[in-house]
Amino acid sequence: MQAALEEARLAAAEGEIPVGAVAVLGNRIIARTHNRREQAHDPCAHAEVLLLREAGAALGSWRLSGVDVYVTLEPCPMCAAALVHARIRTVVFGALDPKAGGVRSLFALCEDPRLNHRVEVISGICAESCSELLQQFFISLRETRPPDAS
Amino acid sequence: MQAALEEARLAAAEGEIPVGAVAVLGNRIIARTHNRREQAHDPCAHAEVLLLREAGAALGSWRLSGVDVYVTLEPCPMCAAALVHARIRTVVFGALDPKAGGVRSLFALCEDPRLNHRVEVISGICAESCSELLQQFFISLRETRPPDAS
Repeated sequence: MQAALEEARLAAAEGEIPVGAVAVLGNRIIARTHNRREQAHDPCAHAEVLLLREAGAALGSWRLSGVDVYVTLEPCPMCAAALVHARIRTVVFGALDPKAGGVRSLFALCEDPRLNHRVEVISGICAESCSELLQQFFISLRETRPPDAS
Repeated sequence: MQAALEEARLAAAEGEIPVGAVAVLGNRIIARTHNRREQAHDPCAHAEVLLLREAGAALGSWRLSGVDVYVTLEPCPMCAAALVHARIRTVVFGALDPKAGGVRSLFALCEDPRLNHRVEVISGICAESCSELLQQFFISLRETRPPDAS
């Protein structure tokens, strides 16, 4: 999760919402990415989607069986379903996302028995650091915005 | 939907599950793609995800407000949530996907009041052609496979 946090800090430095993710196979990091939605002009450029693309390229297959994903924020429904598509073994995440989480908060897509694969879920790892990074980012965004005229 | 069907046929010719998609703004097609999961080794390379990336690049923004998406198959939960992220106005789809659909069949992600945007859904357009293309693809896959020894 430390590597995922480093990625999240890179995102913040680039003006992106700080979410970072890492893919691990065995004891080796095979891919590491962060949110790039603004820079890429891509609504799907969340850390997890970019990560799965990078990991698929590294392994030469879209089937990422046995791969574990570490991500600083609870995946949204898009990313949770992407983890299922990729046959990810375990997703480990930091902070909960009560407004849009697709794994615990609003949906439980990684463990839905109707889908063709289940991803084991471990939550709350380094949750405080992950959450603090997000809070700091949004505080600094508000501070740099011009004051409301109303 | 005819352009989306053309894209789906291209996918089949490339050995990919035949799903095609088109993005329209005003009366202009701004992006058109098809499923490329096998070729790209990317579990997220569904037609819709590729389409939103292409449309975002065309418009220089991940916010695709006012854009309509035509897709031959009901979007999966990943793609349905991606349409919500992109602020798509309307999604028009052909065939239902009773096993994995994220818009009507298993989930109703495009119309979920808890998410921060709602996408209007129109279903069943050219459903027979869209469905027939998929059926033909899976029949030909079975025919080219060696017979089961059991």
